[in-house]
Amino acid sequence: MLNAKFIVFEGLDGSGTSTQAGMLEKRLIQEGARCHLTSEPSGGPVGQMIRQAFKGRLRFSQSPERFDQQMAHLFSADRLDHLYNDWDGVVPMLERGISVISTRYFFSSYAYHCTREEDWALIERLNRDFPNPDLLVYLRNPVAESVRRLQSRALLDSYETPDKLSQVAANYERILDGYYGRKIVIDATRPPQEIHETIMQTLRDL
Amino acid sequence: MLNAKFIVFEGLDGSGTSTQAGMLEKRLIQEGARCHLTSEPSGGPVGQMIRQAFKGRLRFSQSPERFDQQMAHLFSADRLDHLYNDWDGVVPMLERGISVISTRYFFSSYAYHCTREEDWALIERLNRDFPNPDLLVYLRNPVAESVRRLQSRALLDSYETPDKLSQVAANYERILDGYYGRKIVIDATRPPQEIHETIMQTLRDL
Repeated sequence: MLNAKFIVFEGLDGSGTSTQAGMLEKRLIQEGARCHLTSEPSGGPVGQMIRQAFKGRLRFSQSPERFDQQMAHLFSADRLDHLYNDWDGVVPMLERGISVISTRYFFSSYAYHCTREEDWALIERLNRDFPNPDLLVYLRNPVAESVRRLQSRALLDSYETPDKLSQVAANYERILDGYYGRKIVIDATRPPQEIHETIMQTLRDL
Repeated sequence: MLNAKFIVFEGLDGSGTSTQAGMLEKRLIQEGARCHLTSEPSGGPVGQMIRQAFKGRLRFSQSPERFDQQMAHLFSADRLDHLYNDWDGVVPMLERGISVISTRYFFSSYAYHCTREEDWALIERLNRDFPNPDLLVYLRNPVAESVRRLQSRALLDSYETPDKLSQVAANYERILDGYYGRKIVIDATRPPQEIHETIMQTLRDL
């Protein structure tokens, strides 16, 4: 049996993070653990606002730079709520002995909202207080493969373009380089069951 | 005629900031200026969320500390939108030659969301990028007087208690001490018309 752990999946859109998060949840429950599956943007009120903004239903500044800054601020506001709200917050869950699996966490803020060098400083300032997860799982997927997988979706968010995804992929590599918390990087083109077993093995070794 | 100016009113609840902001707007328009009256939390989507949270209709963490942090993050997200949105943002207004009068700005984040020393650092990190106004008008009101004036209101926000207002008053003094932008501090117990004339004289001197 695992102690309650906070496990985060990150990767480009279409890299299989949701699939793997779901497989992990199922497996942990089978093994008798209590487990909560979540994601960012969260299901809370700020997370819903972010989702509507990405769809273009709720509109903020139309300047791409300002829009990124706006999302950076909203994501950190959502993250605080995601972590600490009394209903289904990550930290209260962990304190009750429930493991939490989140698709996306503060790593995504760096990956998706940094274009210019000063953007990194802003993201760092907004997210400095948030705790590291017990394990970061990065599913590394070639940009072309992410683009291919995304083409089958009915609706794409505004940032799901090949150019944006190339930037995001480069940003992820920079974050991974500078992140000294526990992490594992897995080739996302491997068969899903193999990836899942690698993650399980890593968790057992924690 | 004034060039377009960004004028901010700050003060304890019940110190007359809205009254003075309204008087100033009317006067500037009479004198032929174009003028936009606004406030924080703004009328934008994040501002509305903040208002519902203060009323207790929309709920975040019930821990007072976490709630303050949540509000700090939401206010900075709202402030970015308030400043830069394409519909009625402060900066686009100024660029079109329209003066903007705002009741509350980033000074309120320090005044209302700082209890412990580390709170100051958080507010500073969240608000570092926001421009100073052309003039800060602080209406200094005794806490007892603010409490008295608030008693006539039908609904009070959760932070409108004597204890909280004492903290807020002390925080305002600290901000004023450390703020080197253009500012004027006025005794809020003076007659409204006198206060108004003092502000007008200050603006003419700018």
